[in-house]
Amino acid sequence: MPTTQNPASPVRDEKDRVLIFDTTLRDGEQSPGAAMTLEDKLKVAELLDEMGIDIIEAGFPISSNGDFEAVTEIAKVVKNSVVCGLARAGLKDIDRAGEAVRHAKRPRIHSFISTSPVHRKWKLQMDADQVIEAVAASVAQARKWVEDVEWSAEDATRTEIDVLRRCCEVAIKQGATTINIPDTVGYSVPEEYYELIKMLRETVPGGDKVVWSTHCHNDLGMAVANSLAGVRAGARQVECCINGLGERAGNAALEEIVMALNVRADVLPYWTGVDATKFTRASKLVSAVAAFPVQYNKAVVGRNAFAHESGIHQDGMLKNNQTYEIMTPESVGLSKSSLSMGKLSGRHAFREKLRELGYELGDNAFQDAFNRFKDLADKKKIVFDEDIEALVDQEVASQSDRIKVVGLTVIAGTGGPQKATITLDIDGVQHVREATGDGPVDAIFKAIKAIVPHEARLPLYQVMAVTEGTDAQAEVMVRLEENGRTVTGRGADTDTMVASARAYVSALNKLMLKRQRGPSAQAMVS
Amino acid sequence: MPTTQNPASPVRDEKDRVLIFDTTLRDGEQSPGAAMTLEDKLKVAELLDEMGIDIIEAGFPISSNGDFEAVTEIAKVVKNSVVCGLARAGLKDIDRAGEAVRHAKRPRIHSFISTSPVHRKWKLQMDADQVIEAVAASVAQARKWVEDVEWSAEDATRTEIDVLRRCCEVAIKQGATTINIPDTVGYSVPEEYYELIKMLRETVPGGDKVVWSTHCHNDLGMAVANSLAGVRAGARQVECCINGLGERAGNAALEEIVMALNVRADVLPYWTGVDATKFTRASKLVSAVAAFPVQYNKAVVGRNAFAHESGIHQDGMLKNNQTYEIMTPESVGLSKSSLSMGKLSGRHAFREKLRELGYELGDNAFQDAFNRFKDLADKKKIVFDEDIEALVDQEVASQSDRIKVVGLTVIAGTGGPQKATITLDIDGVQHVREATGDGPVDAIFKAIKAIVPHEARLPLYQVMAVTEGTDAQAEVMVRLEENGRTVTGRGADTDTMVASARAYVSALNKLMLKRQRGPSAQAMVS
Repeated sequence: MPTTQNPASPVRDEKDRVLIFDTTLRDGEQSPGAAMTLEDKLKVAELLDEMGIDIIEAGFPISSNGDFEAVTEIAKVVKNSVVCGLARAGLKDIDRAGEAVRHAKRPRIHSFISTSPVHRKWKLQMDADQVIEAVAASVAQARKWVEDVEWSAEDATRTEIDVLRRCCEVAIKQGATTINIPDTVGYSVPEEYYELIKMLRETVPGGDKVVWSTHCHNDLGMAVANSLAGVRAGARQVECCINGLGERAGNAALEEIVMALNVRADVLPYWTGVDATKFTRASKLVSAVAAFPVQYNKAVVGRNAFAHESGIHQDGMLKNNQTYEIMTPESVGLSKSSLSMGKLSGRHAFREKLRELGYELGDNAFQDAFNRFKDLADKKKIVFDEDIEALVDQEVASQSDRIKVVGLTVIAGTGGPQKATITLDIDGVQHVREATGDGPVDAIFKAIKAIVPHEARLPLYQVMAVTEGTDAQAEVMVRLEENGRTVTGRGADTDTMVASARAYVSALNKLMLKRQRGPSAQAMVS
Repeated sequence: MPTTQNPASPVRDEKDRVLIFDTTLRDGEQSPGAAMTLEDKLKVAELLDEMGIDIIEAGFPISSNGDFEAVTEIAKVVKNSVVCGLARAGLKDIDRAGEAVRHAKRPRIHSFISTSPVHRKWKLQMDADQVIEAVAASVAQARKWVEDVEWSAEDATRTEIDVLRRCCEVAIKQGATTINIPDTVGYSVPEEYYELIKMLRETVPGGDKVVWSTHCHNDLGMAVANSLAGVRAGARQVECCINGLGERAGNAALEEIVMALNVRADVLPYWTGVDATKFTRASKLVSAVAAFPVQYNKAVVGRNAFAHESGIHQDGMLKNNQTYEIMTPESVGLSKSSLSMGKLSGRHAFREKLRELGYELGDNAFQDAFNRFKDLADKKKIVFDEDIEALVDQEVASQSDRIKVVGLTVIAGTGGPQKATITLDIDGVQHVREATGDGPVDAIFKAIKAIVPHEARLPLYQVMAVTEGTDAQAEVMVRLEENGRTVTGRGADTDTMVASARAYVSALNKLMLKRQRGPSAQAMVS
């Protein structure tokens, strides 16, 4: 019988250590609809730092002012992780990335260019020699800013071996310390990816002196297996995202990579410095800020990952949990919803609970959160940790909002038309409007729009219960799109209609912020 | 450059054909919370049959009367696929499965027993010799009913090689024609699974005369890669589920397996008889009947699988879609939301549209659906295909309901308490009740509960917009649990509150049906 919990050998050899490179804030955030605010990104970065992620790719500084600001601010707050900024091969890109990461204790510039024939011809209109020249110039430029330079061959898995080898050689010669071989289109199968990494590592001059890295997309469902095949072939950095976020079918899921290495250390004798007990929290946070639901049957962090339905399974589990469980829920930070707080809980207990959940609020924010908690405890029989998280997340998100929901009345039902009356506070002035609509949500949104006119589309409206039961808080997500800008607002309340109004107003606040920041020139890669 | 679209060789060799065994209705349905009604299962089975699935595992006949009935009815309607029923090693199990599948044109019995030491000791309390005897007896009994017998070694990947080999040998000797090697706990990595299948196929006496089969769970994110490693090692049946449904982190996703074989025929020279253009429809259907959302970044069928956000990607895609796309959306049946129907569309056009969407309704159901469509077209500017699907799905689901929502009025907002007045029709008699609650949904559910008293828990309440825009229909899912019975109700309306009432009442109707069918003795495996 193999053991089932992280059977790491007592002596961990540095040569078997796999660096975990998280790109949730860059490749993850470029998933259509997953745009995050600066505040959201900072929260995610702090948690990644805390869980021992080796490298945090914080954004793509030249792509927009927002991205530049995000990388800069993340570089300032991160304590241990390397903070990395992405750049195309152009010198302006590199300099912009250098400016953003220079605040970091451990800065990295990650420069890339496409190497495959189809990308060279259709995207770059460059021949192989021109690409190789660009690689040399970009890596040399990056080394002027930092010592830690990563270079990536975009669409590497569809590149001619000879061209790829020459690109890698030039990058190493110019001082790149990490060479990344992305399976950009999620095209590889494990055997061929293994052979590719092994061949490069063994044949590229200087290949024994750099860290080889994997970056696998999941279009054919094999991102995790491909990444691990790369590790077996000698790669010592894996690029991945929380919840497998990322362009199209996403990147390799960070939590699956780490747990595979932990659980199967017998056949995959490698290790990471990541604290897996933070995975549940990280998964929830990223799901919330990106407004991307995690499917129930998602490995490691899905709602069902540790649930056993069938009689036979339950019976076996009661007798010995090894019958159907290869890792424990606790090993990834999952505990049962705990009865948390009630009407009689005071300020001290509430502050302690917040600390336990990982929140540190300033005095004003704490007082507001406490007031809302007391209101909630009046309405709801049992207040769970998740309820408090929803409440505080909303509190934190809305601190600097210019528009606030003051009051709402809705009349809905089969009789129609549905009617909403809303009171908003904008910069301290109250406005009231009434509107009818096709459904109460339509009526609410129309009333708000009458006060705050705009032309944004509404591509997403979604309601989830925060916990179980009919008196559960509803958490509503609203996504708005205007001139290529996407924002997501969230609102929580026991009244779905009030939560909907809050979410819509939250999205509008973010949209106003984005308008101020000026035009977005997003241009990203995977 | 490898080609990117299903580059199957013109001559397809039968020896390279991989049989696709779908277990959405058995392993998928045993996911906690994914219970499906008989009507739902029949709809899924018909679609699987239509898309060329080789074997449909329809259920576990002895586990409950509901499962027995489902396998029986599916056996009667399926035209081409083999219909399979699961059975433990006991003779009663086998006979019950035999009775259920005997109606099928091509029946199969699938018998299993655990073979691993941890399962033998804790679950079965049997030693290896006793297990081997049980294998012999069960396969022999199954062969009395049918010629097509599959035998599975539960937890095969954690079984001693010698024991596993002896079990397989006995099963083959007794007449099993398919031998399945499940990675029950999702524990394997591709290389070891490859070696295991290869070794068994080459060393078990008679191993060259049977079909070897894979059944891989996704706990470490490697189910698809493991299944394909099995195929490379000589397995010619892959067990999998639509959307990767299944116990815990689920089974290998059917759509990922087939698309990997289609897209990478150059390195995986195998083929299937499955029509991939039905994947989008199948994914939506299974997601709806199981009430399991598909995450946006799910490979092949996720909302983002073919979406390109970043400037660079969009630019590349416009120049040549091969820059970032290894398969086309059309190849998996995805087309853009099409402007569908409006106020002026008549009965004939509506009937044509239903046919195009794959629905065949009886006269009464058609008339009801048409009336609801006209109501919807009055409320909603643009009626999309998805709106019509939501409407008809609800119509089909509610045809035999005893309880119906007749009228609803709701008052909600920050003023509170929220109030709901509901009128229900139960077996032709109208009942009206009013209730207040913590939020309008709570008020509605309390009013309904006052008319239809019950003690069910509410573990899930969820609202999704069917299409974009504030006037979109809301689709609400409500899950109720009572004495171990789980039901899921759905309701759609432009008014979220009306949709919530419909969903709750739909769940209650299903619960009443389940109560009539008697106690559930679910006992399943993976």
